[in-house]
Amino acid sequence: MHYQAPERDAAFLMFELFKAQEIWPQIPAFSDFSEDLISAVVAEGGRIAAEVLLPTNAPGDEEGCTWQDGEVTTPEVFKAAYRELSEGGWLGLAGNPQYGGQGMPKMLACLVEEMLWSGNASLYLYGTLTVGACLSIDAHGTPEQKQMYLPKMYSGQWTGAMALTESHAGTDLGIMRSKAEPNADGSYAITGTKIFITGGEHDLVENIIHLVLAKLPGAPAGTKGISLFIVPKFLVNDDGSLGERNGWASGSIEHKMGIRGSATSVINYDGATGFLLGEENKGLAAMFTMMNYERLSIGLQGLGAGELAYQLSAAYAKDRLQGRAPTGAQNPDGPADSLLVHPDVRRMLMTQRAYNEAGRAFALYVGLLLDQGKYAEDAEAQARSELLTPVAKAYFSDRGFDGAVMAQQVFGGHGYVHEWGVEQVVRDARIAQIYEGTNGVQAMDLIGRKVLRDGGVTLYKFIDDMGQSEVADAHQADLQEALDRLVRVTDSIIDRSADDANLPGAVSTDFLALFGLTIYAWLWARMACVAPADEFGESKRITARFFFNRILPASIGLEQGILSASDAVMGLTPEQF
Amino acid sequence: MHYQAPERDAAFLMFELFKAQEIWPQIPAFSDFSEDLISAVVAEGGRIAAEVLLPTNAPGDEEGCTWQDGEVTTPEVFKAAYRELSEGGWLGLAGNPQYGGQGMPKMLACLVEEMLWSGNASLYLYGTLTVGACLSIDAHGTPEQKQMYLPKMYSGQWTGAMALTESHAGTDLGIMRSKAEPNADGSYAITGTKIFITGGEHDLVENIIHLVLAKLPGAPAGTKGISLFIVPKFLVNDDGSLGERNGWASGSIEHKMGIRGSATSVINYDGATGFLLGEENKGLAAMFTMMNYERLSIGLQGLGAGELAYQLSAAYAKDRLQGRAPTGAQNPDGPADSLLVHPDVRRMLMTQRAYNEAGRAFALYVGLLLDQGKYAEDAEAQARSELLTPVAKAYFSDRGFDGAVMAQQVFGGHGYVHEWGVEQVVRDARIAQIYEGTNGVQAMDLIGRKVLRDGGVTLYKFIDDMGQSEVADAHQADLQEALDRLVRVTDSIIDRSADDANLPGAVSTDFLALFGLTIYAWLWARMACVAPADEFGESKRITARFFFNRILPASIGLEQGILSASDAVMGLTPEQF
Repeated sequence: MHYQAPERDAAFLMFELFKAQEIWPQIPAFSDFSEDLISAVVAEGGRIAAEVLLPTNAPGDEEGCTWQDGEVTTPEVFKAAYRELSEGGWLGLAGNPQYGGQGMPKMLACLVEEMLWSGNASLYLYGTLTVGACLSIDAHGTPEQKQMYLPKMYSGQWTGAMALTESHAGTDLGIMRSKAEPNADGSYAITGTKIFITGGEHDLVENIIHLVLAKLPGAPAGTKGISLFIVPKFLVNDDGSLGERNGWASGSIEHKMGIRGSATSVINYDGATGFLLGEENKGLAAMFTMMNYERLSIGLQGLGAGELAYQLSAAYAKDRLQGRAPTGAQNPDGPADSLLVHPDVRRMLMTQRAYNEAGRAFALYVGLLLDQGKYAEDAEAQARSELLTPVAKAYFSDRGFDGAVMAQQVFGGHGYVHEWGVEQVVRDARIAQIYEGTNGVQAMDLIGRKVLRDGGVTLYKFIDDMGQSEVADAHQADLQEALDRLVRVTDSIIDRSADDANLPGAVSTDFLALFGLTIYAWLWARMACVAPADEFGESKRITARFFFNRILPASIGLEQGILSASDAVMGLTPEQF
Repeated sequence: MHYQAPERDAAFLMFELFKAQEIWPQIPAFSDFSEDLISAVVAEGGRIAAEVLLPTNAPGDEEGCTWQDGEVTTPEVFKAAYRELSEGGWLGLAGNPQYGGQGMPKMLACLVEEMLWSGNASLYLYGTLTVGACLSIDAHGTPEQKQMYLPKMYSGQWTGAMALTESHAGTDLGIMRSKAEPNADGSYAITGTKIFITGGEHDLVENIIHLVLAKLPGAPAGTKGISLFIVPKFLVNDDGSLGERNGWASGSIEHKMGIRGSATSVINYDGATGFLLGEENKGLAAMFTMMNYERLSIGLQGLGAGELAYQLSAAYAKDRLQGRAPTGAQNPDGPADSLLVHPDVRRMLMTQRAYNEAGRAFALYVGLLLDQGKYAEDAEAQARSELLTPVAKAYFSDRGFDGAVMAQQVFGGHGYVHEWGVEQVVRDARIAQIYEGTNGVQAMDLIGRKVLRDGGVTLYKFIDDMGQSEVADAHQADLQEALDRLVRVTDSIIDRSADDANLPGAVSTDFLALFGLTIYAWLWARMACVAPADEFGESKRITARFFFNRILPASIGLEQGILSASDAVMGLTPEQF
């Protein structure tokens, strides 16, 4: 496997498209970050991804994780790589500097995260859960809790994990059964069984900090009666040293389709000592601080998988000699031309590029909104980032999986054989569509909480702004048509949802896809506008044209489908299935 | 895993939609086949799939195949299952009765094949390659060759395999290097290395009959200089007993993403004794007798995977309690409603149904055409079956994979965990898009050989016939619009291809998808028309409506994409990738 971090594209997006160098000086926390410093960080992040993480990717899949008597062994090659990743400060890149973070812009962190996901998704999962847990502790913890946990988590001495799901309930957190009983010392005794706990137990570091959802005695029913607890593997003494082993253990690990180097545990909490994080019965909101971070990060996992898969398939297509170009031999002295001469192979590679490059631009845009929301206290930017988070999670991971499958197709039979690497990328990418809330859950979040709840106000404002952007003349009309379509479709859904409770869910996935396509159209039209007059810029303009010619038209069909009624979706009786 | 053969749908398609009971009596070879006999065959085929093959499916994936010193061991549970499958006469179902086949209609065989693929794709692969090799020997062999090989292959004593691909060449057969040198006794010495040989070596039966493509000394360059040879594992004595071991061996087997119970070998031919099958230098045509059969069969693999995945996910959605219906609790006494109440889950299940049931109808239609071509010497039916074979191979396998991925999504996190079964279906289904000519190769075959070559005559006639079918009033207008669209798109491709050699390849995959959608629209409109006035018929009419509302609209976007020029597809320089 070979991977090269997309440094040129990163610089284009940050400095030519979004002009971060003009935005950051207006944010006091970022005033120190010069273009040179940022470029150096990107280059070093790319090096870590390509030289430290990538070499552990295939071996980690082959070795996998093993469980014995509650102890989980991760792939041998992961230990040193995780140490190098965390000691380099990469986990705390956008973290709070007061507790060991680097305080860098989220926009930059999005770029670096994508690269780390490309390098090794299984390994970086231990990192992303640590970062997310830190965010929740930083936002909801007491000063003592922050001081106790954050520096050691950002530095990589300890990792984090998130314990939500219970076997009988899945996504339906309201029916969870785990209990938290108050102890005399102000802590709680946590009892229950959680499943699908990524990084819940492993041997990479000395301590693992779980954030666990559980119910206090007499708590209200449903999701309003859930509290969040910090439940470390080893209790921490006041001086920061490790104390006794806490009362939980891994009951087993899952045998998964992919991300086999990532240990997914069933965790049994048997009166384990937990510490309330945030307020009683407000655990879901505190968990969502972590979850929203993770959702964007898992979107970036999809993007990273798509980029890795693209690079593998482009290299294969260039090297592999098969057949002749329809326009006549391009390599007349060789036995055959390269796969690159075949238009259908080009179609697959161009589709991957069009997804990946627009996705990267979109990720940076969401990062920018998060920075503006957090550091410039820009409420509109904050609301817009919330609107876009489910889109980023689902659309990146869907397109990343599609791209990986296309890359596998470029490889032909070799794509199905383990040694060539790309089949692992497909298996690894698949999970991003499922965990952190399935993409169906993201689509419901988008249509329900983010569009219907405010009558579309946040969305319409965003559509307006997209329409007023400076874009390439060649794509202005097509973009406007796409924006008009999104308005029509949104109007119609808002209108019809009043009388048809099933309508939002019946069209939610197609609506998210239509929204994603429209955002990508906006970004391609903008990128084509600012792309420089060189080879790189020319590749942007050609890919933009490919996107408008061949990918955006799917939005027309999506509109027609969404405008149909929900009755056929819901028409069968349960017995007819 | 649970699977139930779709017997009710099978009867509907054969006797209510296609009215086989009125067609078969006109074909002398089929005059004995009563409705009752056919239904009994379907029921028994379904039983074999569900009770004999399915139980070996997951264990076969877990055990996989192993290679040692050229010997390949298949999963332990496969031996008895293969014996029961072949001894029941299922491999020879549509085979030549003169040599041990059952001589039944291909239309029926398509149904049964789909079921066997659902039962266990890895295991049935040994069967389908045997059937395909038999067809080629039957069509091109001498009477002695037929007598020597066919009865033992149909009865399951021996299996078949097809050896085309060479490592450096892949799909590009013109640059193959394997040689065939004449021996003094009229046989040939075959030398070369072939890869990706499904069932090339294994321990299920006592002999394996390879059909091998190789070049005679002084043969013309390219694909016009290829001949086909029968190269058994053990040479066969005149009395039919096994003689000495032939000079070839398995060099290794592949570690694959899926179909792990199917052994895929590298085969080294080291002066192995081969017998010319058909004429010198006409090996490709003889191989295509087998290949065309296999292409339809691999399409059926996709269909079978889609049906198995649908059944798994529908059962899960019915059982699993999570969340509440948007319209209010449906299971108020339980902790939650079933997943079936969620419209987005319904969307996934309905999409799977719409694909699978139209796919099954299409498969039977192609089977009917093949029967009419073969037994009624209907040249138009024969040409139409050739037009539709690449569509069946690619569209079934693409939709089967999509359906399996959707089924996995219905399972949420459990879909990613091996023990729940559906992730294996996804891995197994993926290969059907790749082997027997990738789906990109199918799309080129469709647009190049089957449409452009005759100026669209065969296609336009088919479109005409679809337009004249009796269909449900509710869908008449939408179907006509889809047919008109297909005509417009075809006209445009034919027209523009004259000046743009890259155009056919640039749009081929989208054209195949548009064609597939249009055929499914036609079949849904017909099925909705003849569906009976009962629960079953009602489910057909609802699914038809779902198809027209939510799936067919994608054809509008495909049209717009295909009508764009090829320049953006081909615009990047190799260095820009």
